[in-house]
Amino acid sequence: VTSAASAAELADATRDGDRGALARLLTIVESGGDAARTGLAALRPVEAAAVIGVTGAPGAGKSTLANRIVERVRAAGERVAVLAIDPTSAFTGGAILGDRVRMQAHDVDPGVFIRSMATRGHLGGLTRATPQAIHVVAAAGFPWVVVETVGVGQVEVAIAGSADTVVVVVNPGWGDGVQASKAGLLEIGDVFVVNKADRDGVAATRHDLEGMLALAGRRSWTPPIVETVATDGRGVDDLWNAVCAHGEHLAVSGERESRIAARAGAELRGVVDELAQRAADDACASPRFSGLAEGVARGEIDPYGAAQELLDEHGGVR
Amino acid sequence: VTSAASAAELADATRDGDRGALARLLTIVESGGDAARTGLAALRPVEAAAVIGVTGAPGAGKSTLANRIVERVRAAGERVAVLAIDPTSAFTGGAILGDRVRMQAHDVDPGVFIRSMATRGHLGGLTRATPQAIHVVAAAGFPWVVVETVGVGQVEVAIAGSADTVVVVVNPGWGDGVQASKAGLLEIGDVFVVNKADRDGVAATRHDLEGMLALAGRRSWTPPIVETVATDGRGVDDLWNAVCAHGEHLAVSGERESRIAARAGAELRGVVDELAQRAADDACASPRFSGLAEGVARGEIDPYGAAQELLDEHGGVR
Repeated sequence: VTSAASAAELADATRDGDRGALARLLTIVESGGDAARTGLAALRPVEAAAVIGVTGAPGAGKSTLANRIVERVRAAGERVAVLAIDPTSAFTGGAILGDRVRMQAHDVDPGVFIRSMATRGHLGGLTRATPQAIHVVAAAGFPWVVVETVGVGQVEVAIAGSADTVVVVVNPGWGDGVQASKAGLLEIGDVFVVNKADRDGVAATRHDLEGMLALAGRRSWTPPIVETVATDGRGVDDLWNAVCAHGEHLAVSGERESRIAARAGAELRGVVDELAQRAADDACASPRFSGLAEGVARGEIDPYGAAQELLDEHGGVR
Repeated sequence: VTSAASAAELADATRDGDRGALARLLTIVESGGDAARTGLAALRPVEAAAVIGVTGAPGAGKSTLANRIVERVRAAGERVAVLAIDPTSAFTGGAILGDRVRMQAHDVDPGVFIRSMATRGHLGGLTRATPQAIHVVAAAGFPWVVVETVGVGQVEVAIAGSADTVVVVVNPGWGDGVQASKAGLLEIGDVFVVNKADRDGVAATRHDLEGMLALAGRRSWTPPIVETVATDGRGVDDLWNAVCAHGEHLAVSGERESRIAARAGAELRGVVDELAQRAADDACASPRFSGLAEGVARGEIDPYGAAQELLDEHGGVR
């Protein structure tokens, strides 16, 4: 457990550009609790970063494209942080292999910071911790943040969807797959990338995408579809231009504020969940728990009545 | 939303052996809430079922072995329900393929009831819903329940571990894998099965298992290690004898009561979580939510303060 005082100190050191402090503060923020609250409060106010979400099915080439985006930001002389969101690793113990590959290229560059995020045991924690981690890296002097999700699960789509610019990565043949996850991706995409565009079926996939986007109705921004071969860099200029054009659109239309508000909403929702979960944990740590559980086992007490007793004893969620 | 009155009616019909009512009541129990509470209360008291947990890595042959156990219970003239627990399907939309295979063999047998369980969006829900589903099928006249988990995630191990008899399924070569998940499995296993015992490496795997179990220290029950080829039925007699021997041990040692108490504890813990989660959902549905989120976005309000305001407004978790 990190004390509130040291969390505030870590926040100061993070603002001063100390990468070790930044890494430790992110760990605190992932864990939640009072230290996270103090550390985050010590950072505010934070100038909002430009957040690029990269999402798509596993194997679509997200990591490589995220890497290409990092290169463009660096070429423009700006600093960029990458947050790789892997909710599954909390359950499977899996690690993001892509990180190690990327690290080899960027680990000597002080203008790049890469972090894998997975909140132990509670998926909802990531919807809270991701916006908070964005604040932390922004305060540490990274005005660009790439949020890369490992898959297209519900949580991951929600997290990527609260970026300023959402890049959805598909491959040729994508039109043939499952409808459910597509609907979610079509809704959140600001830029669509058909990666591995050196394979057969690019035209058909583009056609499918156009058709589905047309069905989705008119919006103030028409998501462009770009074709890339991330591995050799083909089309990456088009992708970067599309991302920058969308950034312009956000600024001109005033939509950037609503994206920032959506992220704040996700953060607030996540903090409410965290406080409720903490109240539940405290209630179950009560010395009365085992006696009530025995009553439930013997059929003498209704488990819902017992649960309410435990929560009430702890004053509810406060 | 099912009304409390109809949940109580479904409970009555379930007790009378109506399979349609049983299926609907399980759906209500999975969803939680007041209808679940009423339906469960209408069932109590329920004579405890004998619960056999079957767990192990994906592909180890759990479904086939669970199927073999079902055959033995039926051969003994008793009715059996199978609850297949798949926490991942809540996130991936995946389905348990094994079910369909099993259903073909058992779907004409009124003495077998099979159900896949996955609680949408909240993994903790399964630790609540599984003991409750066991009550429901027990009340419906299934004195045997096989709880099969799809993988060896934290939640699945916890769920399988609260069975009366925990069967851990491994394959030859298991000794070579990751240590972390092994430790959890060694702790909870009452019977170890080396399935696919027609492959190379059975003796080494048995040796590894014996060594690891010896390291784990003496217990009142020494977990036997049986070898099976589930696909052709070899060794299934040994497995069934081991399961029955453990059942005897539970009865003689009085340990069965502590297993039932552990399940009740998991259920109570799950209900506390459910009530806390509901309080969080209600708080976030407040009309004040968006205003507070905007304040957080502008850096005017600390998200933790805003979250507490929302929860307090709703009277905390009650």
